[in-house]
Amino acid sequence: MDITFLNICDFIGTLAFAISGIRLASAKHFDLFGAYVVGLATAIGGGTMRDLLLGVSPFWMTNPFYLICTAIALVWVMVFRKLLVRQNNTWFLFDTIGLALFTVTGMEKTLQAGFPFWTAIVMGTMTGAGGGVMRDVLINEVPLIFRKEIYALSCVLGGLSYWLGMRMGLHSMANASLCAAVVIAIRLLAVKFQLRLPVLKGENQ
Amino acid sequence: MDITFLNICDFIGTLAFAISGIRLASAKHFDLFGAYVVGLATAIGGGTMRDLLLGVSPFWMTNPFYLICTAIALVWVMVFRKLLVRQNNTWFLFDTIGLALFTVTGMEKTLQAGFPFWTAIVMGTMTGAGGGVMRDVLINEVPLIFRKEIYALSCVLGGLSYWLGMRMGLHSMANASLCAAVVIAIRLLAVKFQLRLPVLKGENQ
Amino acid sequence: MDITFLNICDFIGTLAFAISGIRLASAKHFDLFGAYVVGLATAIGGGTMRDLLLGVSPFWMTNPFYLICTAIALVWVMVFRKLLVRQNNTWFLFDTIGLALFTVTGMEKTLQAGFPFWTAIVMGTMTGAGGGVMRDVLINEVPLIFRKEIYALSCVLGGLSYWLGMRMGLHSMANASLCAAVVIAIRLLAVKFQLRLPVLKGENQ
Repeated sequence: MDITFLNICDFIGTLAFAISGIRLASAKHFDLFGAYVVGLATAIGGGTMRDLLLGVSPFWMTNPFYLICTAIALVWVMVFRKLLVRQNNTWFLFDTIGLALFTVTGMEKTLQAGFPFWTAIVMGTMTGAGGGVMRDVLINEVPLIFRKEIYALSCVLGGLSYWLGMRMGLHSMANASLCAAVVIAIRLLAVKFQLRLPVLKGENQ
Repeated sequence: MDITFLNICDFIGTLAFAISGIRLASAKHFDLFGAYVVGLATAIGGGTMRDLLLGVSPFWMTNPFYLICTAIALVWVMVFRKLLVRQNNTWFLFDTIGLALFTVTGMEKTLQAGFPFWTAIVMGTMTGAGGGVMRDVLINEVPLIFRKEIYALSCVLGGLSYWLGMRMGLHSMANASLCAAVVIAIRLLAVKFQLRLPVLKGENQ
Repeated sequence: MDITFLNICDFIGTLAFAISGIRLASAKHFDLFGAYVVGLATAIGGGTMRDLLLGVSPFWMTNPFYLICTAIALVWVMVFRKLLVRQNNTWFLFDTIGLALFTVTGMEKTLQAGFPFWTAIVMGTMTGAGGGVMRDVLINEVPLIFRKEIYALSCVLGGLSYWLGMRMGLHSMANASLCAAVVIAIRLLAVKFQLRLPVLKGENQ
């Protein structure tokens, strides 16, 4: 039952990440292959960087699920092109669920590999937000998450909650839920109130 | 004899890939060092990503052949600068041979490492087309292969042919030849008839 | 004592690299999180690529020193914003010390892993100059080191000096000092006399 719930979260998160990549690639007039690759990079890029840094085989290389998800995302964008804007709230929610799940996954995989908690927070954030950075590099734009409302910081704070839970001796399931809840809450608040981090003023200003 | 033939293909493919990187870097006014690095990234970038994902030591780190090839390419571009446009057909042909060989190499290395066939197709495509993406990221352009005539798709279809041959019980040499022939044929047809994949229309159009 | 000296070099080099990333990110209106990530990528990007290629666990994953250094760099830029231009000579010097140290570290780690000397030179250069390339990819600019005065070439020549010292049977400490001295000397000369590598003329010029 738990596994099924996590699988559903993984599915809608991957879908939402892939769709965000495919939409931005389409806006740049990428062809279908290019859109697919950008969607895939958005969906699996963060986890792939994490697995390379951890020295383990990337998660998507033994499970066709993520390639199929991205194909579904591509068909979805083709079929519902005109309706996507109306679905924005749904996709935003799915994206947030994916962000929370991927952060937890990244944290746990890193802790299990024996690395310290601050490495796990870096890895959780990378798993959640790294795919978006890879997407923006591929479409030749300045990474969005470095300039718009709070995104990756919610992963960092979620990761800190996980660690606090650990220090207080909570069960790992409780830590994971706490981490996911913090990521989702901060992301929702950030978008609702357009919370942004301060921008460093340039030296000539 | 076979080894010699493959070595020649590897040489002219590497040369063609490096020259494509050096020419694009020159057009962006990179200096000699920058042009060399971009040429090298174009030639070995795809295979390096593949080897990192497979968890093996990158192929060029124990064999100076690829660094020397790129140096030859740099000298070639410096000496034949005014004649390169006239050589375009030759370099296109060499690039296509490289694309086919690198696709086959990527497929076989991945299958030998025990991964499933669809991972091998992804890896074959990455080996063939990944260097060009890395080149375009380094010169700060939108990757060409995501927008122009069919390129990486010929690797995907070549990879599928390899798999079909395997399923039909053909010898691995036959599969490799079939894969290379399909890559070359589709790439030649794509350029001759300017075949492109459809572009996803943006949401506001 | 030696360890302390190297630690100080590592600290000021990491600081200088991170500050260069943070300043460029600020000029592009990145927020604090984005500036931190770009600073971190500049400081640890080259060594991370090296460690991935060598197949070892990246150096910063077991030592919080580099994340803390980058945080100090961020605070420094925030506090001394108006004075940074006046500190330019100091930061240039620190950057050069970092370049020399990282080149030596990259060479030695690669040689200890059993790779040939020319791979070590590539890795030393990547350790020194790779972070700057990653920085420029993240801020969506053409990599500076491919176009401005000599930078990465000083790592290559430092690496060659190391190798010459090895061939002449010098002690490894002597080789390392020679390498660092050559990197620093060439970098200082390059900036003082604005030495640049020739640029390949485009084909239409």
